[in-house]
Amino acid sequence: MRSKESMSQETDRVTLEEILAAAAAAASPAAAATPAERARWLGAVADALDAAAEELVPLAHAETHLPASPRLRGELNRTTFQLRLFGKVLADGEYLGATVDHADLQWPMGARPDIRRVLVPLGPALVFAASNFPFAFSVAGGDTASALAAGCPVVLKAHPGHEELSTLTGQIVREALVAAGAPEGMFDVIHGVEVGVTALKDPRIAVAAFTGSVPGGRALFDIAVSRPVPIPFYGELGSVNPVVVTPGAIAARGETIAKGYVGSFSLGAGQFCTKPGLLFLPEGHGLDDLLREAVGAVAAQPMLNDRIASGYEHKLRELRAVPGVSVVVAGVVDGTGDVSGFTPTLLATTAKQFLAGGAVVHEECFGPASIVVTYTDQAELLDVLATLEPGLTATVHGEEDEADLVAGLLPALTRIAGRLLWNDWPTGVTVSWAQQHGGPYPATTAPTTTSVGTAAIERFLRPIAWQGFPDVLLPEALREANEWRLPRRTDGMR
Amino acid sequence: MRSKESMSQETDRVTLEEILAAAAAAASPAAAATPAERARWLGAVADALDAAAEELVPLAHAETHLPASPRLRGELNRTTFQLRLFGKVLADGEYLGATVDHADLQWPMGARPDIRRVLVPLGPALVFAASNFPFAFSVAGGDTASALAAGCPVVLKAHPGHEELSTLTGQIVREALVAAGAPEGMFDVIHGVEVGVTALKDPRIAVAAFTGSVPGGRALFDIAVSRPVPIPFYGELGSVNPVVVTPGAIAARGETIAKGYVGSFSLGAGQFCTKPGLLFLPEGHGLDDLLREAVGAVAAQPMLNDRIASGYEHKLRELRAVPGVSVVVAGVVDGTGDVSGFTPTLLATTAKQFLAGGAVVHEECFGPASIVVTYTDQAELLDVLATLEPGLTATVHGEEDEADLVAGLLPALTRIAGRLLWNDWPTGVTVSWAQQHGGPYPATTAPTTTSVGTAAIERFLRPIAWQGFPDVLLPEALREANEWRLPRRTDGMR
Repeated sequence: MRSKESMSQETDRVTLEEILAAAAAAASPAAAATPAERARWLGAVADALDAAAEELVPLAHAETHLPASPRLRGELNRTTFQLRLFGKVLADGEYLGATVDHADLQWPMGARPDIRRVLVPLGPALVFAASNFPFAFSVAGGDTASALAAGCPVVLKAHPGHEELSTLTGQIVREALVAAGAPEGMFDVIHGVEVGVTALKDPRIAVAAFTGSVPGGRALFDIAVSRPVPIPFYGELGSVNPVVVTPGAIAARGETIAKGYVGSFSLGAGQFCTKPGLLFLPEGHGLDDLLREAVGAVAAQPMLNDRIASGYEHKLRELRAVPGVSVVVAGVVDGTGDVSGFTPTLLATTAKQFLAGGAVVHEECFGPASIVVTYTDQAELLDVLATLEPGLTATVHGEEDEADLVAGLLPALTRIAGRLLWNDWPTGVTVSWAQQHGGPYPATTAPTTTSVGTAAIERFLRPIAWQGFPDVLLPEALREANEWRLPRRTDGMR
Repeated sequence: MRSKESMSQETDRVTLEEILAAAAAAASPAAAATPAERARWLGAVADALDAAAEELVPLAHAETHLPASPRLRGELNRTTFQLRLFGKVLADGEYLGATVDHADLQWPMGARPDIRRVLVPLGPALVFAASNFPFAFSVAGGDTASALAAGCPVVLKAHPGHEELSTLTGQIVREALVAAGAPEGMFDVIHGVEVGVTALKDPRIAVAAFTGSVPGGRALFDIAVSRPVPIPFYGELGSVNPVVVTPGAIAARGETIAKGYVGSFSLGAGQFCTKPGLLFLPEGHGLDDLLREAVGAVAAQPMLNDRIASGYEHKLRELRAVPGVSVVVAGVVDGTGDVSGFTPTLLATTAKQFLAGGAVVHEECFGPASIVVTYTDQAELLDVLATLEPGLTATVHGEEDEADLVAGLLPALTRIAGRLLWNDWPTGVTVSWAQQHGGPYPATTAPTTTSVGTAAIERFLRPIAWQGFPDVLLPEALREANEWRLPRRTDGMR
């Protein structure tokens, strides 16, 4: 087993250079591999990770303090499912955007040459792993899966929160890829903050992806776009995930909503980028006791690490100091484990006070806390929604007979979110063809893209048009016979 | 006729504020308009521009010195064709990327909710017009057409090289839009460099597009990505457009190639972003006399303006000073018009000397000059191609029986271009479904995108997923009955 990283130690300069050179050398063969070949690579990685579950899950638990089951087993299952789903994307072939315009002397703007378009990989991708999903948004997570599917070699910057897991996962991924026929430099893992920055500045890196905090992601984005040759940087940063509850929904199922909300914001110790941070309830909602009870029933859960725990405590102090913000339930610290745990904290304020609350109430609080904001009427609710920062999600709990009221809210919610939910909670993010995990800044640095779902592959591809080439010189995806049976637009027709 | 701009004068602060506020106010109604309504708007703009041809073409000629016919008439025709083609994109509907995943309890990663995805406009777009195509890449050009088609209000920063034309075109576009039912703030024109920068920094602007020089585009890109809320910036900057000629092509049709080359690089006084700036010929090509003759036969053409003329002269002096670069034909200045004109200049060097020539020979020279670079063999040619900056196009002139030789060149050319051409010249850029006008930096600041062709609309759209909504609350594009008859992917199937 080749092991380029020493555990818990920065990747050294020589090794980083080897990894970057290998990734650059792998770019051409990776681009030349057929979609079917790349699908096999992804399947091999998924199989190898599934086979190593008994090694991976305990290690993930030890490093992140997340429960082994169902959480980490479920997350590993999600991760290998995701790799295989990108195999289906490759088999389907629509992602290539193959388009054929035959020569047309009658083209109204003047004779048109034969011109054909297809997408090709951007080149070596640098992926920064997240702390909070040690499988699904880490070494073999969605960014890696979509970049590999696109044909981009991946240099993976490990998150320091789970270094041993990153090293082991990286070895499994690398070996599975090479055994399945991928080029040697198709995948490798690097460690260290400065090492990641060095890699990001390296001209051989053509694209980067990141999941994490707003300050961290913005700093890396700034580096990526300040290079002599700026590169696309897909950062998935912060999100407040507001939830609006209508009067009708309160009347019909207030208790269910109260319980669902507490379950969602405290899930995984509130360390989800889709955690509902704000719950908008109509004045006189009558759920105070239910909420207090539901929050009180949640046990303390350890945070991912000390840095996140102390960041959470700091943010909580700031929130509690905002005039007009009251504490409904004050969470308590559980210091018995390796890392501090907390029972959830529930805060409350009014829409009026929220509007006067400044940046603190608008920004994400990463951890098991959320704020209930009461509103007097729809006009006041719309005033508040108009001030919210964009994020990943926005949710409405309502009744179908309130369609007019809800329809009035939707434009305001669409402005601030990439995913809208009805009578559900944002913390579940399915991986499917229609998923959208993104949104205007600061949800992401690239609002036209998604980091979850099959469309995530689009981030790693660029178009090439071929004009006037004889069939034999065209890439297979564009040849007249269409032997790959790709869905193609031909002369404007699907 | 409402006229917000005084000609040849910066837009004042109050007017700019009115225009930005109107664009922001138009964003919601523009997004709510159906694709069919927006197609009608574009058609109305095209009709109005066609009807004003007798006013527009002479004004364009007076300001840019480009020939009225066939150039400017052809360019106006291209421009109105482009607007109508985006109407077809809207009617087709695939651009919406409508995707429906029904709820699926058996989804392998865990039960999937009903989730549906569709693209929506990003919001107000700021478009910086180019100097060299006063219709097709200016006020009503491709960036404007694709942004309007997407449903984004457009604030158009006029190019100072054709201010009166910009004002008149802007009035025609604005009036046609409003008469066709578009919101009042859907389109307006602003003037002035600092005014453009102020607009680019304004939080109401959600996306920007630009066509022009590398320094100008990079400066604006830097501003766009340094905002507190960075926005997508689609800059189409510089391109050298190398052309490689094989020994077989020289033998078969050297004369045709020599004439085609000179015609292409001197077209429009060499002021095309796709001008072939480098012609790679095999040593002993024997075309010197033909090239000299063809260049000598081209009459002087005035440049777009004095700034561009003096920039060209400066760049030419730099090129002539590079050791090993010789002058095959020295262009002469024609100072009889309003603006200097030049007959073309042809330079020559060898691959070895080119490799030692530094940045000057690698960067675009905007004007009627080009460099012939002779190579000894394919290995040397590949060495040079490996050093070239990416650009918009790369061209091969070869013979079909040289397929192996050409296939060996294609990976190197693919790396550096968004469009590859075979036995053709890059200066014609058709507008069609398969067109790609873009490429890795410095061709563009966004290598995943195109600024010409129907895919240009993708730059102005962002995805929204709708999870669990009842049919009545869904946008029409996602409702179960699919009354718009959109092409949709449903449960993973096309």
